[in-house]
Amino acid sequence: MNYHTRKWVKPEDLNPNHSLFGGRLLQWIDEEAALYAIIQLENTKVVTKFISEINFVSSAKQGDIIEIGIEVMKFGSTSLTLACEVRNKMTHQTIITVDKIVMVNLDEDGNPSPHGKTKVEFVKDRLNQNRL
Amino acid sequence: MNYHTRKWVKPEDLNPNHSLFGGRLLQWIDEEAALYAIIQLENTKVVTKFISEINFVSSAKQGDIIEIGIEVMKFGSTSLTLACEVRNKMTHQTIITVDKIVMVNLDEDGNPSPHGKTKVEFVKDRLNQNRL
Amino acid sequence: MNYHTRKWVKPEDLNPNHSLFGGRLLQWIDEEAALYAIIQLENTKVVTKFISEINFVSSAKQGDIIEIGIEVMKFGSTSLTLACEVRNKMTHQTIITVDKIVMVNLDEDGNPSPHGKTKVEFVKDRLNQNRL
Amino acid sequence: MNYHTRKWVKPEDLNPNHSLFGGRLLQWIDEEAALYAIIQLENTKVVTKFISEINFVSSAKQGDIIEIGIEVMKFGSTSLTLACEVRNKMTHQTIITVDKIVMVNLDEDGNPSPHGKTKVEFVKDRLNQNRL
Amino acid sequence: MNYHTRKWVKPEDLNPNHSLFGGRLLQWIDEEAALYAIIQLENTKVVTKFISEINFVSSAKQGDIIEIGIEVMKFGSTSLTLACEVRNKMTHQTIITVDKIVMVNLDEDGNPSPHGKTKVEFVKDRLNQNRL
Amino acid sequence: MNYHTRKWVKPEDLNPNHSLFGGRLLQWIDEEAALYAIIQLENTKVVTKFISEINFVSSAKQGDIIEIGIEVMKFGSTSLTLACEVRNKMTHQTIITVDKIVMVNLDEDGNPSPHGKTKVEFVKDRLNQNRL
Repeated sequence: MNYHTRKWVKPEDLNPNHSLFGGRLLQWIDEEAALYAIIQLENTKVVTKFISEINFVSSAKQGDIIEIGIEVMKFGSTSLTLACEVRNKMTHQTIITVDKIVMVNLDEDGNPSPHGKTKVEFVKDRLNQNRL
Repeated sequence: MNYHTRKWVKPEDLNPNHSLFGGRLLQWIDEEAALYAIIQLENTKVVTKFISEINFVSSAKQGDIIEIGIEVMKFGSTSLTLACEVRNKMTHQTIITVDKIVMVNLDEDGNPSPHGKTKVEFVKDRLNQNRL
Repeated sequence: MNYHTRKWVKPEDLNPNHSLFGGRLLQWIDEEAALYAIIQLENTKVVTKFISEINFVSSAKQGDIIEIGIEVMKFGSTSLTLACEVRNKMTHQTIITVDKIVMVNLDEDGNPSPHGKTKVEFVKDRLNQNRL
Repeated sequence: MNYHTRKWVKPEDLNPNHSLFGGRLLQWIDEEAALYAIIQLENTKVVTKFISEINFVSSAKQGDIIEIGIEVMKFGSTSLTLACEVRNKMTHQTIITVDKIVMVNLDEDGNPSPHGKTKVEFVKDRLNQNRL
Repeated sequence: MNYHTRKWVKPEDLNPNHSLFGGRLLQWIDEEAALYAIIQLENTKVVTKFISEINFVSSAKQGDIIEIGIEVMKFGSTSLTLACEVRNKMTHQTIITVDKIVMVNLDEDGNPSPHGKTKVEFVKDRLNQNRL
Repeated sequence: MNYHTRKWVKPEDLNPNHSLFGGRLLQWIDEEAALYAIIQLENTKVVTKFISEINFVSSAKQGDIIEIGIEVMKFGSTSLTLACEVRNKMTHQTIITVDKIVMVNLDEDGNPSPHGKTKVEFVKDRLNQNRL
């Protein structure tokens, strides 16, 4: 699990019970999964197709710093399956886990399309290769 | 499935591919589930505990009107399990389905607490009863 | 008055006095009137032309659930006149009433255009008819 | 009519027809009326009680700069009645007019309370007076 | 320094320490500088190029009313240099000062382009002149 | 420079010229600096005191993925000075650079207070140490 994006829980992120609004958390996860898939598949036309098993393990409160982790579970031919965990940055306490997020690679017409990727790549390596 | 809340898909709700941002949709669903549970359990301290099987069936685009449906699947002793379907208001085309959303009823200290409810109630009936 | 859309009053909806920000409420009402008119007139190019008499009867506070009701007052030839009432979902206490919201039906060039509608229709009936 | 606050119409302010969302405009007007009343009445507990006659004269599009004007119509004993006009900053074309916005001055307990003001005051003058 | 736009500090504008979020303040300043430059240069394609020396002098809290002042420091051939000060509307206490905001005038292709302006103009005068 | 947080540029982040709104970018930078300082200083009461030299090197457009990098420049006794660079995730093209962001550590009463830190620490090490 690689943790990149961090969020600072602000008043606008709370539900009326003064804890982090679950809907906001789901929004953050979906955005992180989407951008991770775009980076890996080198294609901006990527959509969320399926999400399975979301466990709300603990909550977060105003002022908490959280971080969002993504891990690749499987490269399909037109899809990419990710797992996600969000945790408290300071205590590493798990907040939410998502077992499977299936992202699908689309062509220009919006149909599923083979992405040709089989393993995690790093942008740094791609850029170095282009310079050769 | 009862459909109540409606949304008009505006520019601020889109992802960069010009279709409805999945994260925004999840946020709307979580809010609808939360408020539905609050109404049924007559308790504002209710949290999302588990979400299972989210299928993104079709998308929506700017200007579409969508409606969010909720159905009670089960009254547990401290929980309420809901199903959710979002569809296009004009065509009834399904956009997303969620099989199970488990909401938990909390007491003042934030611990799961029996809610005493066993079936769907209507606010109108409650108010009439109070007037007797 | 038919009540559909529900909102959960969250911290981001409050004014600095900790009650529901009136401007947010007006935004919700305008969106509900617009989408209701779009559904009835089967045209997405509909604009608000006139609003009259808005009474702020009571307020709402964080955590309240409110519902927005719309009623057709009159079908004009190029317009549709609506009334609106927002109330607390749990107590049916009125929050705000709007006597008249005039929506105008536009053609492609943005000019008022006859909509040919004379009474409230239900999407379900339209869809059934299309299947015959 | 004194024009102070200016807004730049951004993508997030549009309705799905690509013009300025009426609900956003109403939100801006309500905020401007509230802060104007707070300044005049020197009390932060001020609420909108009534709005009458809103005319949507013309629209605005993405990139337009608009300005919001407020004028005092009447000092009541516990209220302040304002008029409002929003116009395009570059052409002075009127966008919306609101005949009457009635703001009410509240005491600590939220009840209407005399504000003791009878004419428009300027903050500059108040500050100069305090220095004497 | 001319003060136009006013903001009412609402819950959604706070950081988790309950004071005005600095990022929100920077966003407001950048928008005010952009729209001021657009008005002066009579060109909507204007971008922020450089900001120098931002001093956070004091803070603001929920319910405060603030106003944003802009002053022209220099008309370059393709640029406009502004200074900005934000202060509390009721006390004139300075909240933030920005020494230099350099806005650049762009042509259709996005390249710096001479704007031909050498001094501050008022929209009123421009409109009067057009009527002659 | 360590890059953590990533953002996907969505319609709501654009200025009316269809490029990333500078004010939104400043908001993201301020939030990232704040949460980085909170993590390092192990204190949630941290405020931005000074920002110097912001260069807008290139822009970003809808659908771009950007990442925000932070580097510690200096540990003062009550302050922490950071540098920041935002770049395009896919091309590593610099978007904006900020030479100095001075964050100040506050005590309970909001006064500058020594933080006792002299070098960058990692949360992982802190948590391991606590377990010994």
